[in-house]
Amino acid sequence: MILIGERINGMFKDIGKAIKAKDPGPIHEWAKKQTDCRATYLDLNHGPAAEDRVDAMKWLAKTAQEASDTPLCLDSTNYDAIEAALELCKRPALINSCPADRKKIERVFPMAKKYGASIIGLCMDAKGIPKNAENRVALAMELVAACVEFDVPIENLYIDPLILPVNVAQEHAPEVLETIRQAKLLSDPAPKTVLGLSNVSQKSLDRSLVDRTFVVMAMAAGLDGAILNVTDDPLMDSIATARILLNKEIYADSYLKVFKGH
Amino acid sequence: MILIGERINGMFKDIGKAIKAKDPGPIHEWAKKQTDCRATYLDLNHGPAAEDRVDAMKWLAKTAQEASDTPLCLDSTNYDAIEAALELCKRPALINSCPADRKKIERVFPMAKKYGASIIGLCMDAKGIPKNAENRVALAMELVAACVEFDVPIENLYIDPLILPVNVAQEHAPEVLETIRQAKLLSDPAPKTVLGLSNVSQKSLDRSLVDRTFVVMAMAAGLDGAILNVTDDPLMDSIATARILLNKEIYADSYLKVFKGH
Repeated sequence: MILIGERINGMFKDIGKAIKAKDPGPIHEWAKKQTDCRATYLDLNHGPAAEDRVDAMKWLAKTAQEASDTPLCLDSTNYDAIEAALELCKRPALINSCPADRKKIERVFPMAKKYGASIIGLCMDAKGIPKNAENRVALAMELVAACVEFDVPIENLYIDPLILPVNVAQEHAPEVLETIRQAKLLSDPAPKTVLGLSNVSQKSLDRSLVDRTFVVMAMAAGLDGAILNVTDDPLMDSIATARILLNKEIYADSYLKVFKGH
Repeated sequence: MILIGERINGMFKDIGKAIKAKDPGPIHEWAKKQTDCRATYLDLNHGPAAEDRVDAMKWLAKTAQEASDTPLCLDSTNYDAIEAALELCKRPALINSCPADRKKIERVFPMAKKYGASIIGLCMDAKGIPKNAENRVALAMELVAACVEFDVPIENLYIDPLILPVNVAQEHAPEVLETIRQAKLLSDPAPKTVLGLSNVSQKSLDRSLVDRTFVVMAMAAGLDGAILNVTDDPLMDSIATARILLNKEIYADSYLKVFKGH
């Protein structure tokens, strides 16, 4: 399971402040903490308040790598900011994200090829997010085709079906599960699948419960990774247990400790 | 979700003693408690120690119905005991269980027809439990065919793929999920699917975590019901949340309380 730590995001107060003040402390702290919690990637997002996004993303990439060797997931709608950060990445990065929109595909895929980066491909286009699985999968297919066109290995594509908050868009959740199931059948090798997990529980009362229930369902449907709160211990326990029940890790009484690295 | 309360079982010390002494107290207590926890059925199992199984099952059925109107799930390998209890059931019961074995099918299905009972049909035959989903589904198909042959509505058949303890038979778990998925496609209307959930966590360290993770995965695959510990609050919370995420109940902030009836 690919665990992308969500915490270095300008939407969080401490990170927003740190970006503004160029204070490396909170970035170092969260880079280390999420690495200790077994993050596969650290998501870096400058947040909506950042004035110079190219500068902010470069600073985040540089600063995070001072504290940890964990690869980076560069999260911005500003592709110049992503490209500037890609130049600084010591290990192959993940680009977050590219919708199934021709102009953006033409910008992102060549850049991924050039830097050996992977891509989170969103099941949306200029018209927005489709309501059903069928139309989401059609957009996923365009992203798979773009891999072939731009010579990006299909295993480097992470299809994100885009989960919406269950408290306002409940009918999307089963469609997202079905999209994951079908995306894994689109090609051989299959693209990977990923979720921005915390979206599902926006404004729900018990967020961790909603997150961990949904991720387990999505893993049973074929989910390969998620952007999530890697410091949420019950969530990590659920993921570890789902891996055991899917026969992807060998059972031992100590499996929770093994998964969480302590 | 059909919740079959597992607690009135002679394997539990208090119930085993109560059956022996014909003490109705513990039966009443667990019939009420599980009904309060929203059990759809109460499983009644005389346990391996019961001397006269026909007598024990009749007493259990009579005693449970003194305390609760919840329908009964008659759980025995002794079909005379089940039939004797069926005579006493005030509401349509569930017969637990019938393997895909011709002699047993010929005993159980006519009895289900006569009493309007439903049947838990096991994906096993005289040779045992198959290792993979394909062979489990083949046995499920024999049970579906038996519904047609003996004029039992297919909706009254609950296919149980038979989950084994994950700590010793880990490779079965994903096969069970696949069996559930395929069983729901066997006919239209589809048979129901059910699990003896607690089996999966036998001798695991954190049984509730394993149970609730597996049931959520199974629900995403199409599970209709489970025999389980309805007094396990985190397990019930996971089931309630899975129902919301599968869009089978309408989200409200109070959904956990609504599901659990308090």
